[in-house]
Amino acid sequence: MTGSILKLATSRKTARKFSSAPVPMEAVIGALEAARQAPSGANRQPWRFILVDDPELKGRIRRASERGEREMYEKVTGEFREWLLGHGLSQRKPFLEEAPLLVVVLMDRSAPYAKESVWVAIGFILLALEESGLSTLPYTPSNTRYPLDELDAPPEYALEAILPIGYSEDKKQKETKLSLDEIVRRNKWGDRRVYPHP
Amino acid sequence: MTGSILKLATSRKTARKFSSAPVPMEAVIGALEAARQAPSGANRQPWRFILVDDPELKGRIRRASERGEREMYEKVTGEFREWLLGHGLSQRKPFLEEAPLLVVVLMDRSAPYAKESVWVAIGFILLALEESGLSTLPYTPSNTRYPLDELDAPPEYALEAILPIGYSEDKKQKETKLSLDEIVRRNKWGDRRVYPHP
Repeated sequence: MTGSILKLATSRKTARKFSSAPVPMEAVIGALEAARQAPSGANRQPWRFILVDDPELKGRIRRASERGEREMYEKVTGEFREWLLGHGLSQRKPFLEEAPLLVVVLMDRSAPYAKESVWVAIGFILLALEESGLSTLPYTPSNTRYPLDELDAPPEYALEAILPIGYSEDKKQKETKLSLDEIVRRNKWGDRRVYPHP
Repeated sequence: MTGSILKLATSRKTARKFSSAPVPMEAVIGALEAARQAPSGANRQPWRFILVDDPELKGRIRRASERGEREMYEKVTGEFREWLLGHGLSQRKPFLEEAPLLVVVLMDRSAPYAKESVWVAIGFILLALEESGLSTLPYTPSNTRYPLDELDAPPEYALEAILPIGYSEDKKQKETKLSLDEIVRRNKWGDRRVYPHP
């Protein structure tokens, strides 16, 4: 296993509990500088980022997000429900207030391949934060309209994710992953002969 | 500007022309190992990757993709059309045959937040390839059904991207980017006071 990207991707895991230690702003700005360099459909760069460190606004974003989660939990069924409950997840999202900083990721819906572009940029952010020793969770509220209403963004923007950022106090192990053999094929779906691993 | 992620994100640019030099398979497998470590909705890991190095299959994927592009170019209007023509782009996609290797990225549509998850993983791949000196283009065919029909994937999988991989011979400059001041706000949309840059 070589390469800094592979190392960062491997060490990185999602955090839902954060210490109250302040987040070095240079690290967050560096991560957004990396996101700024991501490719995008027709180079429209459909991403906008609102840094939220105002405690009162974090509280409003939390309450708005939890309102949507309550509605979702009343309706969700099947495998996703089992996964949520099995992971001890609930409609409570304390990390939205506990993390010292939120990065709200907005997307210009009018851009071609807007969602694809924004989530590539989020991928860059995840690795850049990991490199700085910071943790996050790419959280998409079940109803993005409610927290969006707490911001004063123009109507062409959708809320794609809220990234709570801080130092992890989450003791959970990283989720287990499928093996490379299970996810890679060669020339046709049925051929699972994977090349030698590095 | 510090940090290997920021450096890789900054140096990385999209390539549409590739040399015929063979691609070291360890580098591609390393990039897919990084993708494997990405977070995903309910940890469903909805990504599957088909490595395509068979010249005959690359040709069929090219022709199938170009069929969709021809239909799109007949219909496209407005700003996206201007951008396409201004960049000298056309319905011809020779890179699908010229690149020594294609990675076809499939997505299990039944997974929650499948598209978001897959494109985070693609973000990891883009940076890992850059670290290995390889280039790519996150290309989504205008009609993904046509190239998908050339593969024998199960019906629950959609085609999200084709990544042609090789050494770049593309002389174009990287696209210009909006400044950080243009894309970052603080606590409310109207506040453009960005923190000091690193």
